[in-house]
Amino acid sequence: MASSEENEMYSKQWEGCMEIAVQTARTAGQVIREAFKHEKEVSTKSSPVDLVTETDRLVEDLIISSLREKYPSHRFIGEESSAAGEKCLLTDNPTWIIDPIDGTCNFIHSFPMVAVSIGFAVNKELEFGVIYHCLDENLYTARKGHGAFCNGIQLQVSKETDMSKALILTEIGAKRDPATLKIFSGNMERLLKAQVHGIRVIGSATLALCQVASGAADAYYQFGLHCWDIAAAAVIIREAGGNVIDTSGGPLDLMSRRIVAAGTVEMAHYIAREIQTITYERDDHNAN
Amino acid sequence: MASSEENEMYSKQWEGCMEIAVQTARTAGQVIREAFKHEKEVSTKSSPVDLVTETDRLVEDLIISSLREKYPSHRFIGEESSAAGEKCLLTDNPTWIIDPIDGTCNFIHSFPMVAVSIGFAVNKELEFGVIYHCLDENLYTARKGHGAFCNGIQLQVSKETDMSKALILTEIGAKRDPATLKIFSGNMERLLKAQVHGIRVIGSATLALCQVASGAADAYYQFGLHCWDIAAAAVIIREAGGNVIDTSGGPLDLMSRRIVAAGTVEMAHYIAREIQTITYERDDHNAN
Repeated sequence: MASSEENEMYSKQWEGCMEIAVQTARTAGQVIREAFKHEKEVSTKSSPVDLVTETDRLVEDLIISSLREKYPSHRFIGEESSAAGEKCLLTDNPTWIIDPIDGTCNFIHSFPMVAVSIGFAVNKELEFGVIYHCLDENLYTARKGHGAFCNGIQLQVSKETDMSKALILTEIGAKRDPATLKIFSGNMERLLKAQVHGIRVIGSATLALCQVASGAADAYYQFGLHCWDIAAAAVIIREAGGNVIDTSGGPLDLMSRRIVAAGTVEMAHYIAREIQTITYERDDHNAN
Repeated sequence: MASSEENEMYSKQWEGCMEIAVQTARTAGQVIREAFKHEKEVSTKSSPVDLVTETDRLVEDLIISSLREKYPSHRFIGEESSAAGEKCLLTDNPTWIIDPIDGTCNFIHSFPMVAVSIGFAVNKELEFGVIYHCLDENLYTARKGHGAFCNGIQLQVSKETDMSKALILTEIGAKRDPATLKIFSGNMERLLKAQVHGIRVIGSATLALCQVASGAADAYYQFGLHCWDIAAAAVIIREAGGNVIDTSGGPLDLMSRRIVAAGTVEMAHYIAREIQTITYERDDHNAN
């Protein structure tokens, strides 16, 4: 086990990495902002609604090549590299977990909810997260033990425990077969019957999770998202005082493709109890 | 019937009204932006999820009193005046149709999708609309026959006719009984089975409709919204080249509490055909 002195030394080291992550996210955001104005060339990946553009690939290359140059020994997990067949494996090595464009479908439609997400893990523990809202230019950042911020202003989650006063966020996910849609609708209906104030679907998991971190939403749940949607946001929510758990109610599993995030433990567990599971293949299914 | 010269004269007159509407919306938006940062005192209206704050009432008073001073002979329909029992009646007189805070639930949670909406009708025809996104400070404006604009940049709806490439927006509505929720879910499921790119729910009908006007969404549908959600947005969408119809497929009825809006006629009618009706009491039920 590392001594606290060693921990402090590591932590300092990751501080430098985080500064680089912020610069990289801003540069990537600029490229996306420019591309946002133009017509996009769209292809599909796992399903007709799992979309990708040339900009996703270009921005991921830009981010990874620039980080790899500075940190040649580090590992990288990226949405588009994984789609191209690279193993999605979290080891003890320092690992960057990257979503070049979260909200690709929004990006394609020029619907203004699009973010760059860069998370960083060491010894399988998330160390920091950077999420950059490319259009609003809001920068969300958090480093383990040092608080969460948006443009330098400290974030604080909602303290709401009463479901009948909650604003909940979720996403639909890429699976659209009738059975999955029934479970998706059933989950929404159960929460609406609990008289929650409202449910919102904005098309970007990372930006939705940032709304939980900032206290503008009380909770978020989803099946079908990926480790690159979760990594940065999980640190930001935890550092804003929030809870990030598995939909089973147990600890978050970064590779499990499911999450409940909430300001309070009570709300996180209430939602975990209410929602029925939608099964997706794990992110690390091809890792061995 | 008025001659084209008379029409031109009227039109000029309404141009002046629209300038006042823009100023008023900006002033109201400033008040809302300030109140956004603070704790809100919440009450309920027609149901536990039909919410109102002191700021809604204060801003509506501010808007109506300032407009009434300038136009003492005009009529006013406002969300909070109607909730307080005033008749919601559209006559041939010049009538201002006002939502002081569209997205009250968002406002309460400080979820950043909140707008002021001011529509204006003469002879029961919508003449202009002004919608001000209080947080982004985006100002959407349109006057009949003169195009639609966001911050002065002309808007153009999407030309998409293929449902499998569509981004659709909707809202949940205030009715949350099991039967209504089943229809709500069923409508969503049918569109998702048609392999639309996605469905978004942002909690502000007027801002969602502005996304249709700007081409960032291909369509919007909803049951349960009000004339003050529709009035300004309908002009903006039409002037951006879009279609605003009743959910039956017939012409829009401002008081019917239902709408389909889309960039193309094809998409508007496709959605109107697919969705099942949720019945709400008309806005003018107490007008006679």
